[in-house]
Amino acid sequence: MQTTSPSSDRTRVRRIAERGHYDRTTLDAILDATHICHLSFADERGVHCIPMACWRTGDHLYVHGSNGSRLLKMAAAGAQVCIGVTHLDGLVLARSAFHHSMNFRSAVIYGVFERVPEREKAAAFDAFMESFAPGRSAQARPGNAKELAATAVLRIALDEFACKIRTGGPSDDADDRDRPVWAGVLPLAMVPQAPVPEAQTVDAPDYVRNWHRGGD
Amino acid sequence: MQTTSPSSDRTRVRRIAERGHYDRTTLDAILDATHICHLSFADERGVHCIPMACWRTGDHLYVHGSNGSRLLKMAAAGAQVCIGVTHLDGLVLARSAFHHSMNFRSAVIYGVFERVPEREKAAAFDAFMESFAPGRSAQARPGNAKELAATAVLRIALDEFACKIRTGGPSDDADDRDRPVWAGVLPLAMVPQAPVPEAQTVDAPDYVRNWHRGGD
Repeated sequence: MQTTSPSSDRTRVRRIAERGHYDRTTLDAILDATHICHLSFADERGVHCIPMACWRTGDHLYVHGSNGSRLLKMAAAGAQVCIGVTHLDGLVLARSAFHHSMNFRSAVIYGVFERVPEREKAAAFDAFMESFAPGRSAQARPGNAKELAATAVLRIALDEFACKIRTGGPSDDADDRDRPVWAGVLPLAMVPQAPVPEAQTVDAPDYVRNWHRGGD
Repeated sequence: MQTTSPSSDRTRVRRIAERGHYDRTTLDAILDATHICHLSFADERGVHCIPMACWRTGDHLYVHGSNGSRLLKMAAAGAQVCIGVTHLDGLVLARSAFHHSMNFRSAVIYGVFERVPEREKAAAFDAFMESFAPGRSAQARPGNAKELAATAVLRIALDEFACKIRTGGPSDDADDRDRPVWAGVLPLAMVPQAPVPEAQTVDAPDYVRNWHRGGD
């Protein structure tokens, strides 16, 4: 479902509201460009902010963890969580200190996890692997009963969320535009680097050969 | 202060405990390699996970925001927060699905923000700018009274934290090592890209000319 307005009051972007986006196309692009998220939840010890591997399939974001983890206990209790995903795209250098900024794409998702049923776990992991290594789920040894039993998969519906994006150069005050100070953007990008094969491995499949398109 | 054990029970790394690090040298390296963090806190609307620009000076991590933001209200109320910083260094491809992993460096910091006094704000912003653009704080127009008054700077002491690091290749089960499946690491790195100057700008200073050391 496409939405162009916040799905809840707490997802409305207040600071520089024109940077807010509330549509699934924007959200999916941000989520599909990441492999990790930060997961926030509260328990009797306070508020936590934990990095997690994640992947999107359809209308859910998935995470997984050990069946004995506090994450699982928290989720089983139906705790409200908030998930943040951010891509930093560059530092924005303005002529005044105040107008320095950053270019970024971020998403914040609110909700409650549900546990993926046992019978769907193997397929969920296959989708995760296919997301970064197409074809590999048919090559690697699948999880056996013991491995799957030790692992829990959780998912959260992509219903309540907000995205925030900044692009472009600095927005200096008119009075500052003639100051003799360099202004512009220092871009940053996550760039795949050359694969590091194990000593005893086989020929690289396509998803390995195609990994390293840039970088040094 | 160097510490090699957790400063609190909630910062003890439980899953794969040998990946846990509790010393300031490790923490500082992780913080100094980032420009953003995810900040978690709870209020009457739930738990939030918000991306923020950040920088370290000495024994504190700093963030800033509009004086009217909910972040400021939260911090002024002395709310407990948790901050996550994560660098994803690569995808680790094992011969079995279960042993797939990621290489990463992460830090989680707990505590309460304190407000940086008015008289120290300008120096705090200078330190931020110097962290990515040495010399620039003497070039850009400094914040004027109105700009500084509109902005709050918060800092959190680096007292209660944990770092977690994974490096190296996959750890396959002995029974899987002869499987004809590619195994190794697909590395990722944040790489500075070519600076994008504004049309009307001046010659690039050293921190701009030296920005783009790698990338495509």
